[in-house]
Amino acid sequence: MRAYELIKAKRDGGVLAAGDIRAFLDGYCSGEVTDYQMSAMCMAVYFRGMTPPELGAWTRGMLESGEVLDLSGIPGVKVDKHSTGGVGDKVSLSLAPLVAACGVPVPMISGRGLGHTGGTLDKLEAIPGFQVDLPVAAYRRLVAEVGACLIGQTATLAPADKKLYALRDVTGTVESIPLISASIMSKKIAEGIDALVLDVKTGSGAFMKTEADSRRLAESLVSIGNASGVKTEAVITDMEMPLGVAVGNALEVIECLDILKGHGAKDLVDCSIELTIRMLILGKVAVDRADAERQIRAAIDSGAALERFRLIIEGQGGDPRVVDDYSRLPAAPSRFAVRAERGGYVTRIDAELVGRASVILGAGRDRVDDVVDPAVGIIITAKPGTPVSAGDAIFDVHYREQAKLDAALALIGRAITIGDEPPQLRAIIVGEVR
Amino acid sequence: MRAYELIKAKRDGGVLAAGDIRAFLDGYCSGEVTDYQMSAMCMAVYFRGMTPPELGAWTRGMLESGEVLDLSGIPGVKVDKHSTGGVGDKVSLSLAPLVAACGVPVPMISGRGLGHTGGTLDKLEAIPGFQVDLPVAAYRRLVAEVGACLIGQTATLAPADKKLYALRDVTGTVESIPLISASIMSKKIAEGIDALVLDVKTGSGAFMKTEADSRRLAESLVSIGNASGVKTEAVITDMEMPLGVAVGNALEVIECLDILKGHGAKDLVDCSIELTIRMLILGKVAVDRADAERQIRAAIDSGAALERFRLIIEGQGGDPRVVDDYSRLPAAPSRFAVRAERGGYVTRIDAELVGRASVILGAGRDRVDDVVDPAVGIIITAKPGTPVSAGDAIFDVHYREQAKLDAALALIGRAITIGDEPPQLRAIIVGEVR
Repeated sequence: MRAYELIKAKRDGGVLAAGDIRAFLDGYCSGEVTDYQMSAMCMAVYFRGMTPPELGAWTRGMLESGEVLDLSGIPGVKVDKHSTGGVGDKVSLSLAPLVAACGVPVPMISGRGLGHTGGTLDKLEAIPGFQVDLPVAAYRRLVAEVGACLIGQTATLAPADKKLYALRDVTGTVESIPLISASIMSKKIAEGIDALVLDVKTGSGAFMKTEADSRRLAESLVSIGNASGVKTEAVITDMEMPLGVAVGNALEVIECLDILKGHGAKDLVDCSIELTIRMLILGKVAVDRADAERQIRAAIDSGAALERFRLIIEGQGGDPRVVDDYSRLPAAPSRFAVRAERGGYVTRIDAELVGRASVILGAGRDRVDDVVDPAVGIIITAKPGTPVSAGDAIFDVHYREQAKLDAALALIGRAITIGDEPPQLRAIIVGEVR
Repeated sequence: MRAYELIKAKRDGGVLAAGDIRAFLDGYCSGEVTDYQMSAMCMAVYFRGMTPPELGAWTRGMLESGEVLDLSGIPGVKVDKHSTGGVGDKVSLSLAPLVAACGVPVPMISGRGLGHTGGTLDKLEAIPGFQVDLPVAAYRRLVAEVGACLIGQTATLAPADKKLYALRDVTGTVESIPLISASIMSKKIAEGIDALVLDVKTGSGAFMKTEADSRRLAESLVSIGNASGVKTEAVITDMEMPLGVAVGNALEVIECLDILKGHGAKDLVDCSIELTIRMLILGKVAVDRADAERQIRAAIDSGAALERFRLIIEGQGGDPRVVDDYSRLPAAPSRFAVRAERGGYVTRIDAELVGRASVILGAGRDRVDDVVDPAVGIIITAKPGTPVSAGDAIFDVHYREQAKLDAALALIGRAITIGDEPPQLRAIIVGEVR
């Protein structure tokens, strides 16, 4: 294999053979293919794309660069959910215990927040003591015993992806649907799952801004999963506006606990239920959507789902008393209400601006080595569609430092639109790919 | 400057500011911009191109990464010629003394052969003792005293280009007209010249296979030169077939000496004269083409041009006796005649195949560190258009090793086309850009 010949073939619109792709990726892991060759290849892929067979080979190469977990000893159909990331997207925290409570094992390996989008691991770590860096043996045991375990990426799963992602991040080659797809799916397949539900976000706060791009990504992800023997389907959901009401780690934990107690904003509830329904059907514990919905309702009403979250927290070293006592979660010292400048209807709250404001407050990261403040964040007190009078609070900002508040307010102010008429709001579920 | 943001801007079809391009190139030289970022940028440029202002800034950045020679102390308009490279293209060797003999100083920094195309330095080194690695002071002195000096690229001229070319070579990013243009022109402008005539080859044996691509390259080169204050024009010349009759280093030196003695194949003479005419006019020693042609004829007929070549050889440490005694040049131990299989007309001799055959014989390089055999090569004894009978010699192959001859013959056989009718041959001068 001559690396530069494969780069040129891709550059010129050719289709690479599976064996050549494998040799290129193996060479990259061993150092024979250099970073500068890989970045040129990624840029060529950005422009030329990959055919489904090329994409399958690329994903397998990444997957097989490391360990592939074997959870076949655990009874049941193991099902995970993955979101492409958004603002206020805390669905995993309530969904995992809910699905587990309904009898479907959930092995979930998640990521951290970066840029304006949050990450499941950061939210979990807002719970005092919660450990997300567990050895594989503990992960396997917790999936078997508790029914769900939520950990971070390990060094042994798809190491090529870790190396490649770091390279793409600094070479302008992140925004490629095939490369994104292979990155996501190689890590997910390595978890040892049987089925996967994807939540592909679309809109201002999402990685993919347009529905067409989101659908292309969803189709790419679903095709890789199914071709790899992991039954995969995707839901495309709205991310023009933040999901739910909380943006910020401890604040989002509270919102998730509220969901498991039967409360919560309609968009967040709808999104969580839709994904859970699909997981229960894929997990073969529900025969259809109606059956799944009944089981979900029962798990929430009986307190089984909340109890399952308590067990997950306990299993991963966290303080389970937070479930009943939110004051055990970190809290910001100060709060500031952002108020409506005029009366009317809240017609729009821009997800990206809110996400960027939360990063400024300290709730997220600009760079991977930034430290996250679990306490700070933003509560939306008037979701889009709400009628407001001048002076009504729209945001409740939880902050620690005045200077950061001031900087965040500049963005938050621009995030709000108030109009004279109630807005036509897009349903949270935009589409599906299966 | 954030390197990845500039890469993304170019990837997305944006136009980079001159200051950003400069910072990117300076960063590349200092190591702040990594090889993997530069290769991604080059691939983005491959797909997106550069606007004339971007290209000007890129060229200046490369040029100013090193020393820019100042030859203003030498009287006269300093004019160089550059060819984009072809098979049998030995024009520089006869052109430099001819132009110098007519009173125009020629400071010429050339390259080595790579792939199927030869290089001026390799040809010059076929002359026993000839030194192409001279210090800048000696180069300047010889241009002033002898009127011409032909040396290799120095480490101090456009070092960014040297670093970048090595990277492009292994990352599939060589074939980009803006990157090629900036590479060529940054080195040429660094020579300290006032004017430049470019010989942009087109056809099978050239880097650019189509006339349209060759014209685009020529336009790009000319626009950079003129924007940089170097009066530049380009001639597009045919490279479907080898230029002249000899391919191989010592054999080409002999052919050049023959040209200076008033002999030579029509295509090679026509090409050399055309380029020389333009150099004399740009060099302000001739008022028009007719005047230039008269001076050229006089310099050849009087022996002044040949004498100038003798002085150049002497000035650069070579054995000037080769001018009169070709037996002082290296000669291959064996020769083999390739004969016509049928009668008719030679309608085509494929330049690329002949070039590749000569590399196999040892006359050129597959890799930059290959050692060149100055003695071996190919003489075309029946140029296209020649009527032949079956058994007539078409090539006279000068070889050292039987195995290499056998391998070369496989290509040479495919290079010849014999037809029933005389071919319609394209004139050597295909077009011009000024």
